[in-house]
Amino acid sequence: MDTPYRLHYAPDNASLIVRLALEETGVPYTTVLVDRRAQAQRAPAYRALNPNGLIPVLETPQGPLFETAAILLWLTETHAALAPQPGTDARGAFLKWLFFISNTLHAELRMLFYPQKYVGPDAAAQTALSISLRHSLMRHLSTLEHLAASQPGYFASQIITVLDLYIAVCLRWMALYPVATVGWLTLERLPQLHALTRRIEQRASSRAAIIAEGLGTTPFSAPSYPNPPEGSAI
Amino acid sequence: MDTPYRLHYAPDNASLIVRLALEETGVPYTTVLVDRRAQAQRAPAYRALNPNGLIPVLETPQGPLFETAAILLWLTETHAALAPQPGTDARGAFLKWLFFISNTLHAELRMLFYPQKYVGPDAAAQTALSISLRHSLMRHLSTLEHLAASQPGYFASQIITVLDLYIAVCLRWMALYPVATVGWLTLERLPQLHALTRRIEQRASSRAAIIAEGLGTTPFSAPSYPNPPEGSAI
Repeated sequence: MDTPYRLHYAPDNASLIVRLALEETGVPYTTVLVDRRAQAQRAPAYRALNPNGLIPVLETPQGPLFETAAILLWLTETHAALAPQPGTDARGAFLKWLFFISNTLHAELRMLFYPQKYVGPDAAAQTALSISLRHSLMRHLSTLEHLAASQPGYFASQIITVLDLYIAVCLRWMALYPVATVGWLTLERLPQLHALTRRIEQRASSRAAIIAEGLGTTPFSAPSYPNPPEGSAI
Repeated sequence: MDTPYRLHYAPDNASLIVRLALEETGVPYTTVLVDRRAQAQRAPAYRALNPNGLIPVLETPQGPLFETAAILLWLTETHAALAPQPGTDARGAFLKWLFFISNTLHAELRMLFYPQKYVGPDAAAQTALSISLRHSLMRHLSTLEHLAASQPGYFASQIITVLDLYIAVCLRWMALYPVATVGWLTLERLPQLHALTRRIEQRASSRAAIIAEGLGTTPFSAPSYPNPPEGSAI
């Protein structure tokens, strides 16, 4: 590799969070488009990098990494940036919210966006799941709104962390998807998180990612559907 | 606190994984029973420690930590044990599997055990969800069986890590719950993981946790329902 990192991505997928973190660190990286229309993430070549067939993968000098939050955490450690470092007072609190976002907020978003993978083709079952998830997600956002208001230092604060990037992208997705029920989330009712999305999209370091994936001018605070120069989001 | 750590636990809950890790590190800790029959984890006193109302919480000199995997990771960093440390070659690979177990395997187990929280009271929807999850979980276990067979050094190897403890407890749960469909997992078909469960339950450091939560003589390799001296699992 000419650069230390190669990011396997699809526009507006979870790879976007990793791309934003890479841009923040300023380290060189290249990208490889995963052709979702051809289900390339299920193909043997991709599964050799991630046996679970999910986007993203980040190829590193230590081998291919997957799991969005694992990649984020590893980047923060490797570049001593974007997170309270091991051994510091805020480390435990930072980790508990990183795992919460990964295994609860993000996990429930996957279910909301792909209900058929969890309950099969029955429309009533899919609707029951979606209703339950929207309630649950609103509770989680309320929890995170309170956390942001408490100014803990590692989230929604002056110094940006991967939690900020992760939440900004999740909020974007919630505002746009699923297409059939768009509008269920009103970001204006979450003023701390809404302000956070504006700060993220206004950062100079976010611009390259936003342009590369065709996300428009207000991709986090008032998002529109992507118009990427290559590839497809779904 | 007389000891640095206070673990809020219920028998055979996710707190068991943290207890096993505490026993492995040898650091003193005390426990506080969370009375699940009284839904104590939903009460304001507990929510002051974890706003999400989930078990476990570990009180530490840095404040209350929650999220099982976050507590595990923080303990490994704080005590330089049970995991490849930050900056080492295996760190990224260790993190990607820790997050996978937390946000996929463990998250799907929660859905399998509490389907009504996700799809409501409809029996057909619950069944559809459960069937889909059992297929998905078997794929994940197959992936982890292959990982174990590859002897990556940070999982199912001579030096124990929190991944080993985490998986041993998940396998126990899958063998016992949900009670209505018990028997769906046959551990003998996963020889690497089965051998791992035997190694974990035979460790001297596991005995205190096994006795404290009434888990019997083969709690991971051939588990039976808990008979705890205090509290209830569900």
